[in-house]
Amino acid sequence: MRPKLQIACDHNDLAAALEDIKNVGDVVDIIEAGTILMLQEGRQVVECFRALYPEKIIVADTKCADAGTTVARNCATAGADYMTCICSATIPTMKAANAEIDEIQVELYGDWTYEQAQQWLDAGISQAIYHQSRDALLAGETWGEKDLTKVKKLVEMGFRVSVTGGLNTETLALFEGVDVYTFIAGRAITKAENPKQAAMDFQAEIKRIWG
Amino acid sequence: MRPKLQIACDHNDLAAALEDIKNVGDVVDIIEAGTILMLQEGRQVVECFRALYPEKIIVADTKCADAGTTVARNCATAGADYMTCICSATIPTMKAANAEIDEIQVELYGDWTYEQAQQWLDAGISQAIYHQSRDALLAGETWGEKDLTKVKKLVEMGFRVSVTGGLNTETLALFEGVDVYTFIAGRAITKAENPKQAAMDFQAEIKRIWG
Repeated sequence: MRPKLQIACDHNDLAAALEDIKNVGDVVDIIEAGTILMLQEGRQVVECFRALYPEKIIVADTKCADAGTTVARNCATAGADYMTCICSATIPTMKAANAEIDEIQVELYGDWTYEQAQQWLDAGISQAIYHQSRDALLAGETWGEKDLTKVKKLVEMGFRVSVTGGLNTETLALFEGVDVYTFIAGRAITKAENPKQAAMDFQAEIKRIWG
Repeated sequence: MRPKLQIACDHNDLAAALEDIKNVGDVVDIIEAGTILMLQEGRQVVECFRALYPEKIIVADTKCADAGTTVARNCATAGADYMTCICSATIPTMKAANAEIDEIQVELYGDWTYEQAQQWLDAGISQAIYHQSRDALLAGETWGEKDLTKVKKLVEMGFRVSVTGGLNTETLALFEGVDVYTFIAGRAITKAENPKQAAMDFQAEIKRIWG
């Protein structure tokens, strides 16, 4: 299946996010209420995204670490389809969250193991997000063979894997031959001279590579 | 030093949190804007707590996993003294956050190692929060010797350690002889018949044990 395109909104205020989403909301497949934005503006972020784009998949990037039931119920009530859990959350937290919303995505940060990943699958969670963290990117790290190997392994295990962190239309080709579920982009689209064109360029490159 | 008492506000809306805080804000030492509440209501939670209690320590329980600079700057701007990072955040994320706010507290969830803990100390972060996660408690786990051993070890390493998760005035005695920095309580206080009395009972028991 052709990878989806997700726009990440890590703005500091809702109005700025809506201004950017207006340009690209119809082009992307998934709209993400970023962690920064939710911590700043709360559930209304998800509510507004849902109201404006009833047909799109909406992700609440809560990076939930505890109280899975409540956080997931709140996100689902606000209109989110997916919600993220941090990989260091316990299995009971992930299961609790998974019971309250369509799908949970596990955000892979820091140290995690394939043994844990298998536990997530066993708990009924089959989406993972592979990151280059923004702070790691700022520290000079970049996408490489070690990242691709991990993504491929997760796909083989049965995960639908989203990838994110410093992606642009050039870096997409690195993933050729890998069944990526979703490419998540933020500034590469929102900070482009023409954001709508940038989102269409992403979609065109995805179509060129994955057909 | 006598342990402090922190009230955790994991409400779903700001008004309910303010209603509870009004009862106990003057009795506790630290007021926490809980993760659930911040995801629901955003930065205004911290802004309101700061406005109402200018002399208290305010914690933004963001469980930050990435974008440390932005999240910490936003919390500090809103009026928070402390901010939490999840233990699976990278060292660059924690350092970035630590540069923007008075203090970072590392939230210990899932798997972490003393080797990582030493890296946090080396990065200039000397507060940690030891949890019984709500979901673990719901699954029947409780405080025990293995928890106390970990808390003691962290204190010996040089951390100021806050403890939280299902605490009540009876469980405080379990920590006798341990230099706990802060006891964090939520429902044990807010759901008590008389919340102000419950907070005073916590403080009295802390004073009885730690002098």
